[in-house]
Amino acid sequence: MRRAIYPGSFDPVTNGHLDVIERARKLFDEVIVAVAQNDQKRPLFSLEERLDFLREVTGGIEGVMIAPMRGLLVDFAVKQNARAIVRGLRAVSDFEFEFQMALMNRKLESEVETMFLMPKEDYTYLSSRIVKEIARLGGDVHEFVPPCVVESFRKKLKL
Amino acid sequence: MRRAIYPGSFDPVTNGHLDVIERARKLFDEVIVAVAQNDQKRPLFSLEERLDFLREVTGGIEGVMIAPMRGLLVDFAVKQNARAIVRGLRAVSDFEFEFQMALMNRKLESEVETMFLMPKEDYTYLSSRIVKEIARLGGDVHEFVPPCVVESFRKKLKL
Amino acid sequence: MRRAIYPGSFDPVTNGHLDVIERARKLFDEVIVAVAQNDQKRPLFSLEERLDFLREVTGGIEGVMIAPMRGLLVDFAVKQNARAIVRGLRAVSDFEFEFQMALMNRKLESEVETMFLMPKEDYTYLSSRIVKEIARLGGDVHEFVPPCVVESFRKKLKL
Amino acid sequence: MRRAIYPGSFDPVTNGHLDVIERARKLFDEVIVAVAQNDQKRPLFSLEERLDFLREVTGGIEGVMIAPMRGLLVDFAVKQNARAIVRGLRAVSDFEFEFQMALMNRKLESEVETMFLMPKEDYTYLSSRIVKEIARLGGDVHEFVPPCVVESFRKKLKL
Amino acid sequence: MRRAIYPGSFDPVTNGHLDVIERARKLFDEVIVAVAQNDQKRPLFSLEERLDFLREVTGGIEGVMIAPMRGLLVDFAVKQNARAIVRGLRAVSDFEFEFQMALMNRKLESEVETMFLMPKEDYTYLSSRIVKEIARLGGDVHEFVPPCVVESFRKKLKL
Amino acid sequence: MRRAIYPGSFDPVTNGHLDVIERARKLFDEVIVAVAQNDQKRPLFSLEERLDFLREVTGGIEGVMIAPMRGLLVDFAVKQNARAIVRGLRAVSDFEFEFQMALMNRKLESEVETMFLMPKEDYTYLSSRIVKEIARLGGDVHEFVPPCVVESFRKKLKL
Repeated sequence: MRRAIYPGSFDPVTNGHLDVIERARKLFDEVIVAVAQNDQKRPLFSLEERLDFLREVTGGIEGVMIAPMRGLLVDFAVKQNARAIVRGLRAVSDFEFEFQMALMNRKLESEVETMFLMPKEDYTYLSSRIVKEIARLGGDVHEFVPPCVVESFRKKLKL
Repeated sequence: MRRAIYPGSFDPVTNGHLDVIERARKLFDEVIVAVAQNDQKRPLFSLEERLDFLREVTGGIEGVMIAPMRGLLVDFAVKQNARAIVRGLRAVSDFEFEFQMALMNRKLESEVETMFLMPKEDYTYLSSRIVKEIARLGGDVHEFVPPCVVESFRKKLKL
Repeated sequence: MRRAIYPGSFDPVTNGHLDVIERARKLFDEVIVAVAQNDQKRPLFSLEERLDFLREVTGGIEGVMIAPMRGLLVDFAVKQNARAIVRGLRAVSDFEFEFQMALMNRKLESEVETMFLMPKEDYTYLSSRIVKEIARLGGDVHEFVPPCVVESFRKKLKL
Repeated sequence: MRRAIYPGSFDPVTNGHLDVIERARKLFDEVIVAVAQNDQKRPLFSLEERLDFLREVTGGIEGVMIAPMRGLLVDFAVKQNARAIVRGLRAVSDFEFEFQMALMNRKLESEVETMFLMPKEDYTYLSSRIVKEIARLGGDVHEFVPPCVVESFRKKLKL
Repeated sequence: MRRAIYPGSFDPVTNGHLDVIERARKLFDEVIVAVAQNDQKRPLFSLEERLDFLREVTGGIEGVMIAPMRGLLVDFAVKQNARAIVRGLRAVSDFEFEFQMALMNRKLESEVETMFLMPKEDYTYLSSRIVKEIARLGGDVHEFVPPCVVESFRKKLKL
Repeated sequence: MRRAIYPGSFDPVTNGHLDVIERARKLFDEVIVAVAQNDQKRPLFSLEERLDFLREVTGGIEGVMIAPMRGLLVDFAVKQNARAIVRGLRAVSDFEFEFQMALMNRKLESEVETMFLMPKEDYTYLSSRIVKEIARLGGDVHEFVPPCVVESFRKKLKL
């Protein structure tokens, strides 16, 4: 059985993330979506909220699991017996940072391979950061994130 | 009559911004310079100061107006009856971020087109951020920003 | 009246080019599509064929004209009394080359401004070169180019 | 059983290509190395030579097959019942071209996913083109390509 | 005698920095490693700690000096009678920022030239930021930084 | 004595090349401008013409020598007892190619260091290729190349 890790902050999950999860699932028997705690970055949504969003929106996809992640990504991957880390690539700036992280992770643990997938081109413009900014400015984000996230934005930002 | 919006933080306005305003003015009957409040980014200059700098330095250019902007850029553009958003491009990293914003804005409001202009090559190195850093370190910024901004830096940073 | 030039080889015109023409037309009263002869690059389609494709596909758009171009782009723009050159930007590599050309053109003729527009994100992958390669390998290109070009490919490549 | 295609010109195969083949093999049960004929690019080595090099150097790896490829890559992938196309990424310029090709291939055939792997960082500088240039200038290439290719360069370039 | 400045935050010094120092030393008679105070960025290590790390690890290299730097880099270079600023380049994003800084520094002081060196490709993935993140997550950083830094991380992060 | 090599095709030398030569000369006692024969690229100007242009325009600069180069750059550098290869960087696409070449050269000969300098920002748009294209289209190139090259273009292109 082949298992991959799809790591991220998912603050919050977007439709672009879901697209990558589904593509990864076609290539691996199991995909573990690993949610980094990231306290330093002061996420808008708590770890529990971010895990709940992901559990709700991936509920219908067999072979997809959601898990919180503490510590180093490669340690998590080894513990989960995963042979691949999956990352989505949208743009050149993504590419550079992802490349650097992938090389570092390979240095830390050579048995885990990082692979990159392209989200649908409709999602090129999409990131958690940009979605949060639009929501803060009162824009409508229902095309960009799942309904449960739209609802949560409404409460959180008192819109 | 054709009207364009030139949005930004302008914290503070630089000679590169002025160059883009003048280029945009040649292509449109009216250019509205829209100053984003951006409280989250903790600007060095207050919204009122930033508006004043722009009013002073564009005072002599017919067809250029200065306005504060709250909320989404595309909503502002529609309200102002503008058909274009103008952005300056200096470097690849600009390009990627600007592209992402432009695609997102098109998604939010398809009737407003984003267009990109190149500032004079002498201003390739210029940004509000770099000017603020030089001023903080005691450097002379009078070649990079209008006189009223130089004066304000002096007071603000107690140089 | 504001007039812009949209220059290129158009060997052949793609749906991405048409998208840029329509966007440019919304910002200017007239758009002149200028087809460079480019004998050095050995185009697949003759200048006359390339002009014919463009005339056919832009036939219904008021204010769009098609013209062959010899010599320097900026000389052509000045002769046509155009104040802007329009270029489509899709990717970072586009950006660098276009930037270099635009700076050079500004040096040669400071009165003509180059502006960049973004084609629809569905056309990010699209270029005349890639369409020709797919057609040569027997692939179906009807989603990427207008019907008259599909027909011409069929005859030219004896498919 | 999961099968991937690793396509290229392999004119000639380098140690960087071999590194990607081995990484891909860890993620898939079978990897088909598909050698494009590419007559237009006038390869230095004939299709038969390029296939022979690959057969020799991958001889010991179970689950790796070598095959010539004519026509469109996605048609080949579908015929071979492969669910993934594997590509190596070394640099930003790679990234842009590969991205464009991958989006186009997805448009032509949505069931085949393109994924990107990173070769060992020691191979960042390595490409078939650069190896050919060094060999032509009389440089020693034995660190960059397998022994059978070194030998063939010697004969071909009469060194 | 030719003297160069190698400026940075060095929070903390990595093996990649050391590699650049040694390369610079081969090209210049003296290399002054200038440590920026950078209070705004809230460094993990104090200026005194960062200077101590550098003094310890460059102790054996003749012609290398360590110095704290306040104020503008070009003013420091002029005061030190240095004719060159040395910077390491690893990636495209480095390149853009470094280019912008170098152009600005040239504007501020035309007599000081910025030159770029490439660290060993093994250090492409390496940055002070990424090392700090790994250390915070409990990873082993002894391959990336000198022993004195490993020791200090241990105390600082109470690992 | 410190000696550097500045290699290129110089087909033909531009004002941007001259700018880099002068900057390199400030950092090294001697700069050897090495002109690659490059028969494969079918240069517009013969090797002898390219050498003559360079000899004429650098005639007044002490410590600058012009030499033809056959074979590998690093072999030439070692034979000339040079410890550095100097390259000009203008843009991201330059950067990637130059980086790859520099890493390869380091692999071939670790004792020769490649360093990068920035030409004046006015020359960002300038390349031998673009100058040739403008001259072919009948444009005036006297701002971009030395007078002897302008004259030679006139004869060569029968303008």
